[in-house]
Amino acid sequence: MSNYLELVAEKATGRVTPRIAREIGELVGEGGLISEPAQLRTYECDGLTGFRMVPALVVLPASTEEVAAVVRVCAREGIPFVARGAGTGLSGGALPVADGIVIGLARMRRILSVDVDNQRAVVQPGVTNSGISAAVAEHDLYFAPDPSSQVVCTIGGNVAENSGGAHCLKYGFTTNHVLRLTFVCADGEVVTLGGDSLDVVGPDLRAVVLGSEGTLGIVTEITVRLLRRPEAVRTLVADFPDAERAGNAVSDIIAAGIVPAAVEMLDSLAIEACERAVQAGYSTDTPAALIVELDGVAVEVDDEFERVQRICRDNASTGIRIASDPAERALVWKGRKAAFAAMGRISPDYFVQDGVIPRTKLGATLTRISEMSRDAGLRVANVFHAGDGNLHPLVLYDSAVPGQAEQAEHLATAIVELCVEQGGSITGEHGVGSDKACSMLKMFTEPDLTVMALVRSAFDPGGVCNPGKVLPTPRLCGERPGPWRPHPLEAAGVIERF
Amino acid sequence: MSNYLELVAEKATGRVTPRIAREIGELVGEGGLISEPAQLRTYECDGLTGFRMVPALVVLPASTEEVAAVVRVCAREGIPFVARGAGTGLSGGALPVADGIVIGLARMRRILSVDVDNQRAVVQPGVTNSGISAAVAEHDLYFAPDPSSQVVCTIGGNVAENSGGAHCLKYGFTTNHVLRLTFVCADGEVVTLGGDSLDVVGPDLRAVVLGSEGTLGIVTEITVRLLRRPEAVRTLVADFPDAERAGNAVSDIIAAGIVPAAVEMLDSLAIEACERAVQAGYSTDTPAALIVELDGVAVEVDDEFERVQRICRDNASTGIRIASDPAERALVWKGRKAAFAAMGRISPDYFVQDGVIPRTKLGATLTRISEMSRDAGLRVANVFHAGDGNLHPLVLYDSAVPGQAEQAEHLATAIVELCVEQGGSITGEHGVGSDKACSMLKMFTEPDLTVMALVRSAFDPGGVCNPGKVLPTPRLCGERPGPWRPHPLEAAGVIERF
Repeated sequence: MSNYLELVAEKATGRVTPRIAREIGELVGEGGLISEPAQLRTYECDGLTGFRMVPALVVLPASTEEVAAVVRVCAREGIPFVARGAGTGLSGGALPVADGIVIGLARMRRILSVDVDNQRAVVQPGVTNSGISAAVAEHDLYFAPDPSSQVVCTIGGNVAENSGGAHCLKYGFTTNHVLRLTFVCADGEVVTLGGDSLDVVGPDLRAVVLGSEGTLGIVTEITVRLLRRPEAVRTLVADFPDAERAGNAVSDIIAAGIVPAAVEMLDSLAIEACERAVQAGYSTDTPAALIVELDGVAVEVDDEFERVQRICRDNASTGIRIASDPAERALVWKGRKAAFAAMGRISPDYFVQDGVIPRTKLGATLTRISEMSRDAGLRVANVFHAGDGNLHPLVLYDSAVPGQAEQAEHLATAIVELCVEQGGSITGEHGVGSDKACSMLKMFTEPDLTVMALVRSAFDPGGVCNPGKVLPTPRLCGERPGPWRPHPLEAAGVIERF
Repeated sequence: MSNYLELVAEKATGRVTPRIAREIGELVGEGGLISEPAQLRTYECDGLTGFRMVPALVVLPASTEEVAAVVRVCAREGIPFVARGAGTGLSGGALPVADGIVIGLARMRRILSVDVDNQRAVVQPGVTNSGISAAVAEHDLYFAPDPSSQVVCTIGGNVAENSGGAHCLKYGFTTNHVLRLTFVCADGEVVTLGGDSLDVVGPDLRAVVLGSEGTLGIVTEITVRLLRRPEAVRTLVADFPDAERAGNAVSDIIAAGIVPAAVEMLDSLAIEACERAVQAGYSTDTPAALIVELDGVAVEVDDEFERVQRICRDNASTGIRIASDPAERALVWKGRKAAFAAMGRISPDYFVQDGVIPRTKLGATLTRISEMSRDAGLRVANVFHAGDGNLHPLVLYDSAVPGQAEQAEHLATAIVELCVEQGGSITGEHGVGSDKACSMLKMFTEPDLTVMALVRSAFDPGGVCNPGKVLPTPRLCGERPGPWRPHPLEAAGVIERF
């Protein structure tokens, strides 16, 4: 087998000279190039807390051809680049590469076509997630994946991260809703991946690009599936005396053969933050609450809604509030989707974690997290996709207290390692990016990682596409990475903490 | 970009010598090696009509370690190999490679574990598709993908071909039901692809192996998702005065927001054959019939079942027969699933085609196929997955009539090219294999194919895994392949017609 370290060795060491900047400027025209230091600084980070890197240049191409032309220059000069949508990613996937170029896709935000009969649309990567659904709402259609950031995040970013959301329990991730991609390869060649039918002909390269976090090339056109709006939607918020019984209710709902559109869990700390920010009407005196949403044909939804309430009561639910109309339902979701940002109401700083455990281990894992929180002396709020065991512990801290940021980061890392020990994984939907590249060593063997690196090298032999993300390297992780060290990207001088 | 022709050039030119046969025999032990010419001949073809190639050796390893050891010898000696399940594939994917080794997985047929709470099982590749469902039936669980050959075909073959089936309209293909793979790489290294959660961490190499038709390596262990048996299942057979109105009923059902578990269409010729073989109770005097099956919660299914019947009547259905109990439902499906084999009742020979069209073009495409059938003077029976536009035209012919086999093959090729023209694809679920490698040129550009070849070379730089399948090569297809020539594999002397 090939040598892993050779495969992931840094290859793209080219630098942006004034001549290259001019050449790229001519490709994308006036308004397509950002080189002013103050403006460059607005691209220095994404949604990953605490890390930044000012890029050498930001390019905003307006078409597939312009993206391809810029990539050809990068390939020729060996200049690393990272594609960027709205920069809302939480794992540092869109963090600029040192001395590299950011290829921003904000100008490519057109919906190119909508095929109502076959329920699909062709869109550019800069269209927002909600923007797709808004554009087809008149036909009673929508795009199913719904990350909490859906109002601002872009479909290109959703494709790069294979984004999920509250409703992926029933409807699957972005990969289940994307049929075809126009894709600019690392050498600037433009190809089509996937096709118009769900079963891909030949190897499913569409699937390997979905979730590859910009490390294989740049997607410039996306054919998405659209779903028909369900006839009925019913939503409730059920309070529980503890997280364990809420978790048991989730297991019982699934075991009853019911597949809710969404099952979200919030603990008291998360509820407190959400209520302060949004006043969604959650009970602030409950230790745990579940949001359960059912959708489908009215007769089915009504029947299952009764059964879900019965299961909640059987698991000692202390109160069930039913959203009686669309406005109330929207408010329930507004609270949930604002949860991460709402942490600012109860803590100066917080770290968002993302891990997966088998659904059956929900209660035990939450109990363990609460012990770890107590031992570390740091509060942990839990708000997450309970139906598929996708935890989002929020570690609260105060960066003004010396050492607390590091402690919080350590606790967050320990929690994700707990997930792996439980038979789960290091990320459910936020991606690996730069944040968890070193944690890949906890989940995968060297041969596993070598196959990933081989495929990556097949797409990008010159190593220009978002290097230093996803796959661990000695530079990032050291020889024996451990949880107590400073962030490896920081230790390596690749990024600076702020 | 790399040179496509260099990437697909024949690299594995090693031959099985007596010494190598002995070495492999020692690896797999008594009963694991077949080298007798008469026995080798039983492995000379799969379900693709008309082509055969006797392998140099057949190996039947009993464990992942034995598969890896055999592959290591092949890699060292540059001997091409093909993995084989039950040999029911219809596109020649398991057709032996000239002078190569068949690695049969029939001895690896254990169900290794079942996790009822998390609804998954770990199985070996030689377990039959139905065998998985049978093993978990006591827990009210089942494995959803259901190719018509499910009683004999193996899960390893289903993974290789990303198999579908009548119920993939609602439940998706094999890729949607496989979480994790133990995978023997082309150099004999053993890796894990995918994981226990649906969202894969890192690049989704699980997905690229699903449907890669044995060209990347060999899967030796599969973690499958299991679904809970639906509370209610209702099935009907509706007759229509013509295929167009049956097609319109399909469109109307989907447009009404109903997602049936299955929607199958049969024309009069297909019905005649099925009835002669199985006596499923289809009306033999109807030009077209739909089988519609709904499953889910009883109240929903009852409601939707009423609506489906109304939609059929609104589209001039001339009669609706409802399967009143499980036995009658089983008989309806027995007829449908026997359809391909049943063609033997009405024609000495037949050629199974597999193509996809947008569902909205169903009526027009069927009309065009019937014109092409008339012009060619060959009967075409249609029995197919109407819900997802996956056509299975069966071209009937008599090989005793000189030239008719070639004519039938030409008509089948012309039909699949019609599918591509309609915005569809060359295969819905039967795969590319050797049968359609040259048709890939109709769907993909050279850069598209180059990316596929690059990924394939990343997995298998020595070209030992099932060479000559899926990707077109000049040897197979000539410089300008056209529909009127003999089968390219035959023309190239790679296989012989029988």
